[in-house]
Amino acid sequence: MERVNLLAAMKDRMPEKRYIHTIGVTDTAMALAEQFGQNPKKAEIAAILHDSCKYADREWMKQTIIEQKMDPTLLVYHHELWHGPVGAYVAKQEFGVEDEDMLNAIRFHTTGRIGMSDLEKIIYIADMIEPNRKFPDVDMLREASKSMELNDLMITCLSHSIQFLMSKHQPVFPDSFNCYNDLLLTKKGI
Amino acid sequence: MERVNLLAAMKDRMPEKRYIHTIGVTDTAMALAEQFGQNPKKAEIAAILHDSCKYADREWMKQTIIEQKMDPTLLVYHHELWHGPVGAYVAKQEFGVEDEDMLNAIRFHTTGRIGMSDLEKIIYIADMIEPNRKFPDVDMLREASKSMELNDLMITCLSHSIQFLMSKHQPVFPDSFNCYNDLLLTKKGI
Repeated sequence: MERVNLLAAMKDRMPEKRYIHTIGVTDTAMALAEQFGQNPKKAEIAAILHDSCKYADREWMKQTIIEQKMDPTLLVYHHELWHGPVGAYVAKQEFGVEDEDMLNAIRFHTTGRIGMSDLEKIIYIADMIEPNRKFPDVDMLREASKSMELNDLMITCLSHSIQFLMSKHQPVFPDSFNCYNDLLLTKKGI
Repeated sequence: MERVNLLAAMKDRMPEKRYIHTIGVTDTAMALAEQFGQNPKKAEIAAILHDSCKYADREWMKQTIIEQKMDPTLLVYHHELWHGPVGAYVAKQEFGVEDEDMLNAIRFHTTGRIGMSDLEKIIYIADMIEPNRKFPDVDMLREASKSMELNDLMITCLSHSIQFLMSKHQPVFPDSFNCYNDLLLTKKGI
């Protein structure tokens, strides 16, 4: 499916504000893909679809996680984390995405994971810094995106996100913690 | 061994400043033990011994971790983390501590772990808030220690410590992350 059809499908699935966010993520992801030598078309499709299940029925998502044998740890943590993995399933089943890298970019866009690809990092970062996001330090992260290498930018965004959750004493999905250490240890060559 | 002998042994193993810290941790741990209904004598001995290997030879600690089949992940992370597990070994071998709870309190005083006992939490917290510690927010943590339940206090101290490491983009030992989630999920009854 092409951009216009995918966007129309997203518009039907989410409130206006989330749709505007989706467009912001798409534009940002495509720009980051160009900047970091990745395929902007893959970034575009993954970004458009990344939140397709943000407003999906919670019970249906739970059943899908169980039936599709996704990581059962997801069910112990906040349901907000479910729309990534379930969104990847929908991207494949409903929108015909076969590219595993694009599916992983959708799957792990909220949590990160050990061994993220460049495309996965781009979608994670774009989701965080797209122009409609408003939170303290978002401008600092946008500035950082102009000069940092992709790995360092990912570390900066992920650590910000984890620290925010910890400052609220919220549980942090283990994939995020593991991703954080993985990025740092890989950087140190360990 | 009694307090006076243990303290004398510690004085020989560390600089004056660390010895003063050790006394601070000991007094704080005993007070916390009284406050939270734990055995102050156990807290006293564990606190005196908690940093016995802080200045131990790094290569010897590495060999001890390998030979005693301690968690090999320790060797991937900063050597600063080694003195807890090796200190527990020394507490048993050299100072005759047999109580597994006291040994665990020494072993995990830098990292925390899933399923910490009350004594383990007390040593972790005392190490962080004893009167000679100086870092931003330490007074807030000391204040919190007067009113919070032990679990909440542990969450507050541990999350502060992890956030500090993350703000410096330092790796965080997995036991600490796992401990953080464990404390929160246990609190939520999950």
